[in-house]
Amino acid sequence: MTNQPATHGGAGVESLAEVLRRFAEERDWQQFHTPKNLAMALSGEVGELLAELQWLTPDESARVMADPVAGARVRAEIGDVMIYLVRLADVLGIDLVQAATDKLADSARRYPVEQARGSAAKAVDA
Amino acid sequence: MTNQPATHGGAGVESLAEVLRRFAEERDWQQFHTPKNLAMALSGEVGELLAELQWLTPDESARVMADPVAGARVRAEIGDVMIYLVRLADVLGIDLVQAATDKLADSARRYPVEQARGSAAKAVDA
Amino acid sequence: MTNQPATHGGAGVESLAEVLRRFAEERDWQQFHTPKNLAMALSGEVGELLAELQWLTPDESARVMADPVAGARVRAEIGDVMIYLVRLADVLGIDLVQAATDKLADSARRYPVEQARGSAAKAVDA
Amino acid sequence: MTNQPATHGGAGVESLAEVLRRFAEERDWQQFHTPKNLAMALSGEVGELLAELQWLTPDESARVMADPVAGARVRAEIGDVMIYLVRLADVLGIDLVQAATDKLADSARRYPVEQARGSAAKAVDA
Repeated sequence: MTNQPATHGGAGVESLAEVLRRFAEERDWQQFHTPKNLAMALSGEVGELLAELQWLTPDESARVMADPVAGARVRAEIGDVMIYLVRLADVLGIDLVQAATDKLADSARRYPVEQARGSAAKAVDA
Repeated sequence: MTNQPATHGGAGVESLAEVLRRFAEERDWQQFHTPKNLAMALSGEVGELLAELQWLTPDESARVMADPVAGARVRAEIGDVMIYLVRLADVLGIDLVQAATDKLADSARRYPVEQARGSAAKAVDA
Repeated sequence: MTNQPATHGGAGVESLAEVLRRFAEERDWQQFHTPKNLAMALSGEVGELLAELQWLTPDESARVMADPVAGARVRAEIGDVMIYLVRLADVLGIDLVQAATDKLADSARRYPVEQARGSAAKAVDA
Repeated sequence: MTNQPATHGGAGVESLAEVLRRFAEERDWQQFHTPKNLAMALSGEVGELLAELQWLTPDESARVMADPVAGARVRAEIGDVMIYLVRLADVLGIDLVQAATDKLADSARRYPVEQARGSAAKAVDA
C-alpha cells in the first residue's frame, strides 16, 4: 500500500478501511488507535478544516473550491477527516454508511417535510 | 426517502450523498447548507462524539461497543458525523474516498514504514 | 461552594480555578481530570457552542444575545467552555491570562499593523 | 499594545479583552470578528490543542508540562484558545468568569456531592 494506494471501486469505504488498517499495522500504530485517541485526532482534523473556512463569509465558503490553492487545502483537510472517521468506525466495528443511513431515518421522522420546510430552527439536528 | 432510507450497495458514499441532497431539497435547507455552516455542524457532531468518550480510559473506549446503551449512542454520533461529512463533501464537489486515498498516499511518503514503526511522534499526522 | 458559588473580584480566573478545584475534589473527580480528558471535554463544549451558531448568518450571530432564549443558551455554553478551559489550565499549571498575553505578543510581531490591516488572510492566526 | 502587551493585574480577563479589542481595531479586523467566525476560530484552536495530546495516554498527558518542548506547545495552544474565548465573549458582551460561575452553580445542583462522588457517569456535564 505504501507503493500504490488502493483504487476504490464499488467497495469505497470498506476498502479504504482495509487500507488504513494495513497502514496502521505496518507501522505498529494499532496501540495508539484506541477509539478515544482516534476521536481526538478526528476532532483535531475538523479543527484544521474549520480554520480554512473561519474568516470566509458563507458565500465565499461556497466558492472556495474555485481557488486552486485554498481548494486544495480544503480537499486535503476533508481527506484527513475522512481518514480518521473511517479508521475510528473500523476500530469500533461500525458500518459508517449504515450508521448514517439509520440516523437519517430518525431525522426524517423528527423533521417531516411539511413542518421543516425552510426553517433553520428545524434544521438544527438534520 | 422520508419513507424508505436508501439501502446502500456498491455505491455507498455516493448514494448516501444523493439521499442527503434530496433530504435537504425537500426541506428547502440548501440555503443553510453552505460549506461554512456544514463544517460547523460537522464540528458540533464531533463534539458530541467526544463527549461520549471523554471520561473513559483508552481501554474502556476500546470496549465501548460492548455496552448496548453507550454503544448505541456512539454509533448514532458516528452516523451524525458521517452525515455532515458526506453532505459537506457533496456541496464542495469533493469525492470523499478519493480525497482520503490521496491524502493517505502523502502520509505513506512522510511516514515510511521503517522510520515510523511504533512511534507515536511519527503517528501525529497519519 | 455547592451552596454559594464564589463571587469574583480582582482575582477572577484564579479564584474560579480554585472553586473548580474544590468542586472536583469534593466529588473525587480529580481521577477523571487528566489534561487529555479535560481537553476532550473542552472540545465537546465548544461543539455545543458551535451548534448554537451554525445555521445563523454572521450578522444574525452578531445579534444572538438580543434573543433572550438563544442568548441564554449561548451564555451557558460559553460558561461551560470557560469552566473546562480554566480547569485544564489549572491542572497543567498554566496561567491562562499570561499564556494568552504571551501568545498575543507573538501575533503582534507576526501581524504588524501596517501589513495586516483589513486582510482576512492575515487574520488567520490572530 | 503592539509594543507592550498589557501586564495583567487584578483585572485579568477584562484587561485582556481590552487589549484584544485594540489589537483587532488597529488591524481593522472587527469586520471578521463576528461571533460565528470567532466560534469557528476557537474550535480550530481547540483542535490544535487536542492534536498535542491525542496520542498520549492520560498519564502521559498529566506529565506533558515536564517536557519543555511539548509543554511550550501546549501552553501556546492554551493561550490561543483563551485569546479567542475572551474575544468571543467580549464581542457578545458576556462576562466570562460570571458566566462560568453561574453555570457551575447549576452543576452544583445537578451533581450533589453525595451522589456524584467518584462517578465518571455523573461527571459528564461537570
